[in-house]
Amino acid sequence: MEPFANLTLPEKEALRKTLREEFDRICAKNLKLNMARGKPGTEQLNLVSGILTVLTDPTDCVCDDLDVRNYGNLSGLPAAKRLFAEILGCKPEQCFIGGSASLQLMYDLIAKAYTHGLRHSERPWSQEPKVKWLCPAPGYDRHFGISNHFGMELLTVPMTAEGPDMDLVEELVKDPTVKGIWCVPKYSNPQGIVYSEKTVSRIAALKPAAPDFTVMWDNAYCVHEVFGEYLPFPDILSMCAAVGNPDMVYEFASTSKITFPGAGISVMATSEDNQTYLQGLLKYQIISYDKVNQLRHVRFLKDKTHTIEVMAKHAEVLRPKFACVLDTLAREVGPLGLATWENPKGGYFVSVNTLPGLAKRTLALCAEAGVTMTAAGATYPYGKDPADSNIRIAPSYPGLEELQQAMEVFCLCLKLAALEQVG
Amino acid sequence: MEPFANLTLPEKEALRKTLREEFDRICAKNLKLNMARGKPGTEQLNLVSGILTVLTDPTDCVCDDLDVRNYGNLSGLPAAKRLFAEILGCKPEQCFIGGSASLQLMYDLIAKAYTHGLRHSERPWSQEPKVKWLCPAPGYDRHFGISNHFGMELLTVPMTAEGPDMDLVEELVKDPTVKGIWCVPKYSNPQGIVYSEKTVSRIAALKPAAPDFTVMWDNAYCVHEVFGEYLPFPDILSMCAAVGNPDMVYEFASTSKITFPGAGISVMATSEDNQTYLQGLLKYQIISYDKVNQLRHVRFLKDKTHTIEVMAKHAEVLRPKFACVLDTLAREVGPLGLATWENPKGGYFVSVNTLPGLAKRTLALCAEAGVTMTAAGATYPYGKDPADSNIRIAPSYPGLEELQQAMEVFCLCLKLAALEQVG
Repeated sequence: MEPFANLTLPEKEALRKTLREEFDRICAKNLKLNMARGKPGTEQLNLVSGILTVLTDPTDCVCDDLDVRNYGNLSGLPAAKRLFAEILGCKPEQCFIGGSASLQLMYDLIAKAYTHGLRHSERPWSQEPKVKWLCPAPGYDRHFGISNHFGMELLTVPMTAEGPDMDLVEELVKDPTVKGIWCVPKYSNPQGIVYSEKTVSRIAALKPAAPDFTVMWDNAYCVHEVFGEYLPFPDILSMCAAVGNPDMVYEFASTSKITFPGAGISVMATSEDNQTYLQGLLKYQIISYDKVNQLRHVRFLKDKTHTIEVMAKHAEVLRPKFACVLDTLAREVGPLGLATWENPKGGYFVSVNTLPGLAKRTLALCAEAGVTMTAAGATYPYGKDPADSNIRIAPSYPGLEELQQAMEVFCLCLKLAALEQVG
Repeated sequence: MEPFANLTLPEKEALRKTLREEFDRICAKNLKLNMARGKPGTEQLNLVSGILTVLTDPTDCVCDDLDVRNYGNLSGLPAAKRLFAEILGCKPEQCFIGGSASLQLMYDLIAKAYTHGLRHSERPWSQEPKVKWLCPAPGYDRHFGISNHFGMELLTVPMTAEGPDMDLVEELVKDPTVKGIWCVPKYSNPQGIVYSEKTVSRIAALKPAAPDFTVMWDNAYCVHEVFGEYLPFPDILSMCAAVGNPDMVYEFASTSKITFPGAGISVMATSEDNQTYLQGLLKYQIISYDKVNQLRHVRFLKDKTHTIEVMAKHAEVLRPKFACVLDTLAREVGPLGLATWENPKGGYFVSVNTLPGLAKRTLALCAEAGVTMTAAGATYPYGKDPADSNIRIAPSYPGLEELQQAMEVFCLCLKLAALEQVG
């Protein structure tokens, strides 16, 4: 295969016609393939369904001298705090245990900043004339969605191979209306980038003008290796505390991609002072999240070592799927000079950057051919990718055969989009 | 026993001394008894622990063509909607299924009114110069807590034997800054009053000045009979719709006192238009509440008939406890003219009204003697009972023997408080 750039115009037009015919044949098949969301596949759910039977008897339901079936313990089961603290490297007292969605804990934190203010806020953010928020991009659409939902101005910070562009971040936080930043520090969504130690140190040591500047540290993929051994990662809470920023960071994680996405548990880890302040607000909202399910997770996952063993089983299922995506891209698109992509070692996504202006058209063609993907632009603030280039591929949900088919459709659509652009 | 009013001063003083000696003997026992919260007892939790084993295998986890283990279905499992709709008498499409606390759904609704406004709001309530809220009292402290937390002005509406004083409610809703009312329509907290059909009709037919006036219909005790058969209750949603107020009411219920308080499911039922509007906001907050637990509840409770059978078993445990409270009051306090109380047929509480000015002192004495009760005043807005009279007794958690002991201490403390007042 020749890079498209080397083809003459008539060669391009001839190739476009051939590919269009192939595309039409595929459309006729009425495929229904989905690579839109980082959703574990059924094989993965079956791997962890032993969690259904770890508690079967009333006597199983006592832990830390608590009957988990009854009311109480706003901040969650102590044993669940110990489990998450060990996984994240923080302290149990820094943990608040939530329900099936860490998204909810993140939303609620921002909502409380908006309605009541955080510990160091001068006033609730709803009373601020302007709130700006830093959005490393490409990033996670649901993060940007929360900020946008609360009327913030979203500032794009480009991602580098080491994490967000920290020169720019350090500059932007001098503006007191800049109130925070979204981070997915390990196996970032969608690129799978692991923030370097230097980046993490610079984030911990930020000197923002806003007294209530907030680092939303969404450690969603903290134990989510796909290729290779478990990769240790620094504890942001102690790093922030060490440089005089103890209350600046809120770390989030969940078991959504460890046990069941629809029935996991989640955590918000932050300084004990922040916990005291926030639990003073949270007590109006909830008695406690589901403690029976918290105990199920404690009994099933046991500790960090065993959790990593469970994750190794997930990786066995995910590895061939990631390989399929990466191999197909390398074979079908690589030689043509149409796109570049990351080779993630973990997380749930492969991030593809097409030549400028091809993402939307590629995904429109995919949709026509029955392949659903995350919308083009979703990885950027306001859903607008200025280069119309970034595409997020989520390989986890389809079976391997379906995935192979979907990837071939995707590559065909990308080629076709590139050739149409010429015309 | 003679009513205290008939005693001479020296007789009162002599009696006070005798009772004080008895009180001191009790204090020396270092009791630790708790009648503070409507918390089911262990026997009740054991009754329903079969719910732990209704789902044991991956194949059990499919319902309505959904694998409940995975992501998706913001508004909850359709089968859970059907279950709650049957119990409440509304439609499944009107139901949003939540997590372990209906409190959370109530808080979130008010929070969304505050941050974004409800469907008919002219602006978010955070932008209103003033928001007032109607609080039938005595009522539920956590309700008043939410309103207070969002800076509302709480207006007390006296309870009558048929529910809130509707003449007053109809008058107050003419003020456009009055945005809503808290209601516990069946076996109200704490009095156990069942709103009459006439009251329910008048609430449904309110003509409030505020376009976004909100009836928070907390049907927490919808199937919670203690004495006698299941009592049918009208569906407020269709009643509101019938008189042109389809979007005015939000009904809440949960399984907290049906299965496990710490691990139940909850529901918010409202018009489909409200659901569409609200789910447009909720999608930023959560992927879905725990659907595996929703399915557990569907499999365990089955339908309304079976749910009522489960509740009959709870009632068998609760009946002797309620009888103990009522009998002890009748025996120890009744003849003395110191207090009146309701005789609830369901719910979780007995509400006692002492002579004015005795509630705080009675509960302070109880605390000294090792008996914890809901704080005096808690049943009124701002925690302030103007008559210092209302006391909420929660008989469900202690064992029968402990409860008997606690009630005797309570009656002693009430008598002592009354005699101290004279002095």
